[in-house]
Amino acid sequence: PSYFTPHEASGKLTAMRNLRLAMAQINPTVGDLKGNSRKIIRYIERAKSLDADLVIFPELAVTGYPPEDLLLKPQFIDDNLTALKEIAKGVTGITAIVGFVDRSAGGLFNGAAVIHRRRVAAVYHKMFLPNYGVFDEKRYFQTGTTPMNMVIHGITIGIGICEDIWHEEGPVRAQALHGAEVIVNINASPYQVGKPPLREEIVKKRARANGVITAYNNMVGGQDELVFDGHGMIVDNNGNVIARGRSFKEELIASDLTCDNPPGKTSRKVPSRPGIETVTISETVKRKRRRPLPRRSRPEPPETVEEVYRALILGTKDYVRKNSFSHAVIGLSGGIDSTLVAAIAVDALGAKNVTGVFMPSHYTSRASSEDAHSLADNLGIEITTLPITDTFNAYRQLLRGSFKGHKKGVAEENLQARIRGNLLMALSNKFGWLVLTTGNKSEMSVGYATLYGDMAGGFAVIKDIPKMVVYELSRHINSIKGEAVIPQRVLTKAPTAELKPNQRDQDTLPDYDTLDAILKAYVEDNRGLKDIVDMGFEKELTRKVIGMVDGSEYKRRQAPPGIKITPRAFGKDRRMPITNRYKSG
Amino acid sequence: PSYFTPHEASGKLTAMRNLRLAMAQINPTVGDLKGNSRKIIRYIERAKSLDADLVIFPELAVTGYPPEDLLLKPQFIDDNLTALKEIAKGVTGITAIVGFVDRSAGGLFNGAAVIHRRRVAAVYHKMFLPNYGVFDEKRYFQTGTTPMNMVIHGITIGIGICEDIWHEEGPVRAQALHGAEVIVNINASPYQVGKPPLREEIVKKRARANGVITAYNNMVGGQDELVFDGHGMIVDNNGNVIARGRSFKEELIASDLTCDNPPGKTSRKVPSRPGIETVTISETVKRKRRRPLPRRSRPEPPETVEEVYRALILGTKDYVRKNSFSHAVIGLSGGIDSTLVAAIAVDALGAKNVTGVFMPSHYTSRASSEDAHSLADNLGIEITTLPITDTFNAYRQLLRGSFKGHKKGVAEENLQARIRGNLLMALSNKFGWLVLTTGNKSEMSVGYATLYGDMAGGFAVIKDIPKMVVYELSRHINSIKGEAVIPQRVLTKAPTAELKPNQRDQDTLPDYDTLDAILKAYVEDNRGLKDIVDMGFEKELTRKVIGMVDGSEYKRRQAPPGIKITPRAFGKDRRMPITNRYKSG
Repeated sequence: PSYFTPHEASGKLTAMRNLRLAMAQINPTVGDLKGNSRKIIRYIERAKSLDADLVIFPELAVTGYPPEDLLLKPQFIDDNLTALKEIAKGVTGITAIVGFVDRSAGGLFNGAAVIHRRRVAAVYHKMFLPNYGVFDEKRYFQTGTTPMNMVIHGITIGIGICEDIWHEEGPVRAQALHGAEVIVNINASPYQVGKPPLREEIVKKRARANGVITAYNNMVGGQDELVFDGHGMIVDNNGNVIARGRSFKEELIASDLTCDNPPGKTSRKVPSRPGIETVTISETVKRKRRRPLPRRSRPEPPETVEEVYRALILGTKDYVRKNSFSHAVIGLSGGIDSTLVAAIAVDALGAKNVTGVFMPSHYTSRASSEDAHSLADNLGIEITTLPITDTFNAYRQLLRGSFKGHKKGVAEENLQARIRGNLLMALSNKFGWLVLTTGNKSEMSVGYATLYGDMAGGFAVIKDIPKMVVYELSRHINSIKGEAVIPQRVLTKAPTAELKPNQRDQDTLPDYDTLDAILKAYVEDNRGLKDIVDMGFEKELTRKVIGMVDGSEYKRRQAPPGIKITPRAFGKDRRMPITNRYKSG
Repeated sequence: PSYFTPHEASGKLTAMRNLRLAMAQINPTVGDLKGNSRKIIRYIERAKSLDADLVIFPELAVTGYPPEDLLLKPQFIDDNLTALKEIAKGVTGITAIVGFVDRSAGGLFNGAAVIHRRRVAAVYHKMFLPNYGVFDEKRYFQTGTTPMNMVIHGITIGIGICEDIWHEEGPVRAQALHGAEVIVNINASPYQVGKPPLREEIVKKRARANGVITAYNNMVGGQDELVFDGHGMIVDNNGNVIARGRSFKEELIASDLTCDNPPGKTSRKVPSRPGIETVTISETVKRKRRRPLPRRSRPEPPETVEEVYRALILGTKDYVRKNSFSHAVIGLSGGIDSTLVAAIAVDALGAKNVTGVFMPSHYTSRASSEDAHSLADNLGIEITTLPITDTFNAYRQLLRGSFKGHKKGVAEENLQARIRGNLLMALSNKFGWLVLTTGNKSEMSVGYATLYGDMAGGFAVIKDIPKMVVYELSRHINSIKGEAVIPQRVLTKAPTAELKPNQRDQDTLPDYDTLDAILKAYVEDNRGLKDIVDMGFEKELTRKVIGMVDGSEYKRRQAPPGIKITPRAFGKDRRMPITNRYKSG
């Protein structure tokens, strides 16, 4: 197979053994059945204009992914079936594979519809349903039982959905044994660091082991805690990448696949055996001399820090846009976290759609003020100053009787954070702005954040970004922008919450590099105290950190959603009881 | 079989066909492996002191239920296995069935250990794993494949775990066909309105259909959003209840089961067939003349409103206690919701452990003040008054520039609620009190609540109680207390948030009886707009209510947990996307 087939129109036999495949790497919105259908129809037209034989869409493209408990509404399932029919009506001169929710007597299935000549010619049901991490597919779907091959222009194509391709003994093997030369796998595979290369490895392995050209199409876009990264690819039957989609961008990836004499596959026949369903698609189009596909670059996957940066931008942009906001407001403290969030927000929404609010107290340093303002200058965003001292004094006055005889402490610190939260929410309520919160994963892990204070807001952009990565991303932004958008001092000064005199994060927390390493072991890797101590960390410190993580579950439960970046984010990905007396010993 | 066997010691044959069963309806705490083990050992000793042959414990008694992602920690599984061994060490002269997490090469199983002579003689693996509603068992557990019978004192006993008994074609049938005369089913079945009679119906049906005495043992206690209600029962093979546990209380339910000549079962043999595992427990105790069991009353199940009331009390008490709080603080507005929450808190924690805070504004009526204070008097709780006007003015002053040219509106209303939230949290931070929030299900459904305002707190007692049930419960409390603990005017005056002049809930919302009916159809029963209109509700009103429910998902996501009472609560039970463009049409 070659990427740009050179012998396109050399006769009937060759034509019959060529397949022009278009992968629509689209960004649907959960629940927007009409909008998603329009998008699917538009991409089918684009694929037709490229003379493609087959166009494929992501998993659950009609509904968006994951629809969660919308799937329990019978009307929603009906409406999704109606949408599929509407899409099918317009399909002529091409075959389309579209992800949707199927319903049969047995229940609901995560389905792939094969659409041809204005009708659904066949439906494949996903066989491997993920029910771990962020996934709950067994809550909704029945398990498909039968692999499916489809014959189109004399080429046998196996259809799979997402996790189907992750299993060595999964449907790909059966499909290949029953004659498949091409596998198309449609996905809604959310991003996390390390996932794109892992997917590529799996796809290459499956392609090589089964001697099949493998087309992997993924969704793009943000949905609450998830961001889908695209990163589609086509791999030949030797495991070489012959086409690659971009990351975090919608696009149509078209490629000519040649199945003449695939190595070792010459004797393949279209079988009719039990254990697999084979659907033959009759040709409708007289194969004409096709225009060659336009040359396109094959983008290399970005390096990890850039990938994370793009994930945060798209995740933020889509949360704002898909929830019908247009403007975001951020409390700027002059610290690194709010600085990074503001920079991402500007990349996602544009400077004119971001407002910064600087809310100094008695404890706020001149450096903080300077850094917040020079950031706003650098980004070109509006900045408002709302000093909180008078309001704070009003609270203290009001609580004087109740607090008499008690020392100043956390209550007073939290009050300052909560006044700031209230001010941002007041601006949100008045102007319809979305409040972006600025807490990073390290803080969220140990509860170094004020509930209803700095945790107040609609979307937590860097909730799953450990503090050390906050620095890495900030340096990366300065490096790609070619200037210190993020003020240099913000990158070097000691982190502080500025809620009492001379406060430093490290008064309460270990160094962030130590903290982040312990947190990775405990939160992401499920290691216990003993294991972590064996890794070389101090026992009492580790015990303290674990205690802080366990003890702040109640805070995380009330946190806004944020973008999953690591293999294990807070939220749907990590479901811990609040009431929990387990001590990792 | 009879409840108090009259012919206890009439000879060997009879003795061999009698079983004294003790069901330990206990209240474990999630993660408290040591505490749960101590409790289990204590109940084994109590069962022995009653000369019981067999004592059974709830599902996952060792870990508490549900342990959620604690199950992903390998150390937690190890520790649970160690705890089981420690329990087993002390078991002599009795057989015990204890729920725990088993691990084998295939993964984790929801297991029931048969403990005898200081060792685990057999382990049954749950075959039907719930993965809907609040349940995620397929996230953690592999599916058991083999039903198990156990022979003890010549009686064949089938072992089942929770959902195993809900399926007509489930293990009970196989167990009966293979000789079981008694079924013991151990549960962690959370309460919801209507569940106790439903369970009883299922247990009776299974008992009759299979001719088996059926012992249903359930957990008791609160765990985050769930409350387990106990309500254990033993049903004879004709479907008659012969013993019944109390609701919402720990206890040991002991009963003598007689298996002589069970109708139609005289020819049953202990089989040794494929498809079932049969374990024979050798007797260790010389059967002595047993003391008859103490007479006990057979409590009738309470009526529904009383049942809900007890669920709220236990759920609140256990959340407070198991999270190591001892004192709760509640914002008292003089309205019905905070009044009910205060009454429940006093029943759960005692009057001296509850503090009320009255936080009047410019808009607070004299009636509200009087009602809040007479409630505090009636309950015997402390009440503090913190007027919020000065603090509110400080905010308005601060925001004057930003808000210039804009009308007063929701921003100002929410600020008042948020000042109150901040004050309660300040008291919480200063004194270690748990803030109980007071929003009911009707408000939570339509978002008639202020995020970080009246929604701020650790536990939302009546979050799953529709407004009409709030009234019903309040009247019930007055009726059982025999006096108007809840001031009469609170029951009759029009509900208001008092956030602007002359505000009434019904300015914005339909009558609560209409609202609650629409909400039940939409939220609990998953009906769409058309269906609800067909039920007789006005179309535009229904559309508006549905829109309010959909549009406030982001608020609910940041709400504290509260006790599930209805068949579908917010929280784990209803997993809706925030980003969601679906319009039920």
